[in-house]
Amino acid sequence: MREALKEAEKAFEEDEVPVGAVIVKDGKVIAKGRNGREKLQDATAHAELIAIREACRELGSWRLTGCSLYVTLEPCAMCSGAAVLSRIDSVIFGAYDPKGGCAGSVLNVLSCRDFNHRPRVLGGILEEECSFLLKEYFKKKRE
Amino acid sequence: MREALKEAEKAFEEDEVPVGAVIVKDGKVIAKGRNGREKLQDATAHAELIAIREACRELGSWRLTGCSLYVTLEPCAMCSGAAVLSRIDSVIFGAYDPKGGCAGSVLNVLSCRDFNHRPRVLGGILEEECSFLLKEYFKKKRE
Repeated sequence: MREALKEAEKAFEEDEVPVGAVIVKDGKVIAKGRNGREKLQDATAHAELIAIREACRELGSWRLTGCSLYVTLEPCAMCSGAAVLSRIDSVIFGAYDPKGGCAGSVLNVLSCRDFNHRPRVLGGILEEECSFLLKEYFKKKRE
Repeated sequence: MREALKEAEKAFEEDEVPVGAVIVKDGKVIAKGRNGREKLQDATAHAELIAIREACRELGSWRLTGCSLYVTLEPCAMCSGAAVLSRIDSVIFGAYDPKGGCAGSVLNVLSCRDFNHRPRVLGGILEEECSFLLKEYFKKKRE
């Protein structure tokens, strides 16, 4: 999660909503991503989606079996859906997102029994650090 | 939808689950996509996500206001989430997907009241043609 936080800090510096993600396999970081919606002008450029695509490239496979996704904010519907599609083992997130989170806050995409894969999910890891960065960003935006 | 079906037919020929999508603005197709999970070995390479990213590039904006997404199959959680994030006006789909559809079949991501955007949604357009192609694909796979 510390590595994901570093990605979130880079997003903060780039004036993006500060969310960062990494994907780990066998104890090694194989992919990183940070929110780049404004810089890239791409609605899909969320930290997790970028990291999942990079991990697929890295492994040469759409299946991320044996991998864990660490992300500083509870994933949205798109990113939760991508995690399910990639068959990733685990999703570990920091801050909860009461407005858009799809690990249970708004909808539960990650643990939906109707889908053909359900990753393990763990929320609230380094929650304070993860949400501090988001709060600072939105405080700055309102100034 | 006929244009989306052409994309789905190309996916069929490439031995991919045959789903195709196009994005229309002011009566013109500005982006196309077809499922390319196997060919690209990318879990996120769904027709809609590819088309949304292409439309953002085309317009130089992450906001797809004024655009409509036509897709041959009810969008999954990832693609429905991406449509919401892109602020697209409408999502029009062909066949329903009882196993993964997120326009109401399994979850309702597209019309979720908690999200900050809700596209207009219309399902079952050219449903027979759209599902025929999918059935043919899975029949061929079982042979």
